[in-house]
Amino acid sequence: MEKRDLMYEGKAKKVFSTDDEAICIVSYKDDATAFNGEKKGTIRGKGVINNKITNYLMKRLEKEAGIPTHLIEELSDTDTAVRKVSIVPLEVIVRNIIAGSLSKRVGIEEGVVLPRPVLEFCYKDDALGDPMVNDSHILALGWATEEELETIKDYALRVNSYLRDFFSSIGIDLVDFKLEFGRTPDGRIVLADEISPDTCRFWDSKTKKKLDKDRFRRDLGDAEGAYKEMLTRIFGA
Amino acid sequence: MEKRDLMYEGKAKKVFSTDDEAICIVSYKDDATAFNGEKKGTIRGKGVINNKITNYLMKRLEKEAGIPTHLIEELSDTDTAVRKVSIVPLEVIVRNIIAGSLSKRVGIEEGVVLPRPVLEFCYKDDALGDPMVNDSHILALGWATEEELETIKDYALRVNSYLRDFFSSIGIDLVDFKLEFGRTPDGRIVLADEISPDTCRFWDSKTKKKLDKDRFRRDLGDAEGAYKEMLTRIFGA
Repeated sequence: MEKRDLMYEGKAKKVFSTDDEAICIVSYKDDATAFNGEKKGTIRGKGVINNKITNYLMKRLEKEAGIPTHLIEELSDTDTAVRKVSIVPLEVIVRNIIAGSLSKRVGIEEGVVLPRPVLEFCYKDDALGDPMVNDSHILALGWATEEELETIKDYALRVNSYLRDFFSSIGIDLVDFKLEFGRTPDGRIVLADEISPDTCRFWDSKTKKKLDKDRFRRDLGDAEGAYKEMLTRIFGA
Repeated sequence: MEKRDLMYEGKAKKVFSTDDEAICIVSYKDDATAFNGEKKGTIRGKGVINNKITNYLMKRLEKEAGIPTHLIEELSDTDTAVRKVSIVPLEVIVRNIIAGSLSKRVGIEEGVVLPRPVLEFCYKDDALGDPMVNDSHILALGWATEEELETIKDYALRVNSYLRDFFSSIGIDLVDFKLEFGRTPDGRIVLADEISPDTCRFWDSKTKKKLDKDRFRRDLGDAEGAYKEMLTRIFGA
């Protein structure tokens, strides 16, 4: 399978068309951005690590949790063939422990364990700063149908349940994470985008050391080391 | 019934205890604030008008839409006896037409009619700026139970349905409004706070002239006239 035209370049990935209308190639980059693109940098090795972690987790989610994904196959260290989908314009955020924007929003310190998972939606729009929206905005503004929204919520909570257990088994607290979903040409919802230290908050269960993009966002140092540590733990599992 | 101690002074109302543990007196003020208290002013006659409009609408909602409210009886032009409730710490916003913060949030111009009502919740906390929250925040952080939340949503949509028709009959578009609910000592949810040009956006159906607090917020002039116009239309109905 060969890359044809660059269809889209995002903050951390490029997406190429292929000779097959139904298939794209995602190419992961080492580029890191934060705060809606205001902070820019590089985390060496991130592209390879995020590609491998995403594919590993999506495979397990497909097989063991019955979550359909866009994954077709890993082509190289940084490149993966995926089904071409139309992305639902929502960031789906699942939270188990209060951190980041939720901590600021509700004035509760980071680290407080939520008695039940919190699900948030942000409307994907860089110019608007990906604002938080709720079910009634999504339905009234037509970003997803009622049925799609129910499917997305069900998948998001099942992904959380599966991943929380998986990460717990390798000594990691799954604090929160962001998912994106796509529509296949025949209208089915599938998990798309990535699941990686770029899109999840991972804390060492014992030391609470941050092993994710917060090391870059918050200038905590050794982001590379944290990404490598996550790769090692996951593939040692 | 006599006022005893000042229990609470808000931006637009004072609340007094009475000799009866179960009853408070709400006293409406002419003071107006906007932008979380950053802008301050006075709208002459507002206290009287908001008291009268609120009581009129709550009476009709009780009688004609079956919505339980905290209203007991109007005591004077500015004062009303209400049941003492514990306020659910949520602002419940119902929207029929895009305006204000929703317009900014989703980048859609004011005046676009929503194909279905939008319901929003904000956590009542001045220091946090009354942040928007969703169902899962409310349940996980314990601000309301699942049953209370369902009741509040049901009441809010029924209030909207009733008021939209009522205002339409007097040539007013009910653009959006904010409700608050309270818990009675026996745990029932009742509509509390006020329903007035302070808490609703009212547009003349033909001219789209704003007849609400936006005249003060946005320095549009003649806020007093707008409040009087609303009183006249409602009591002429």
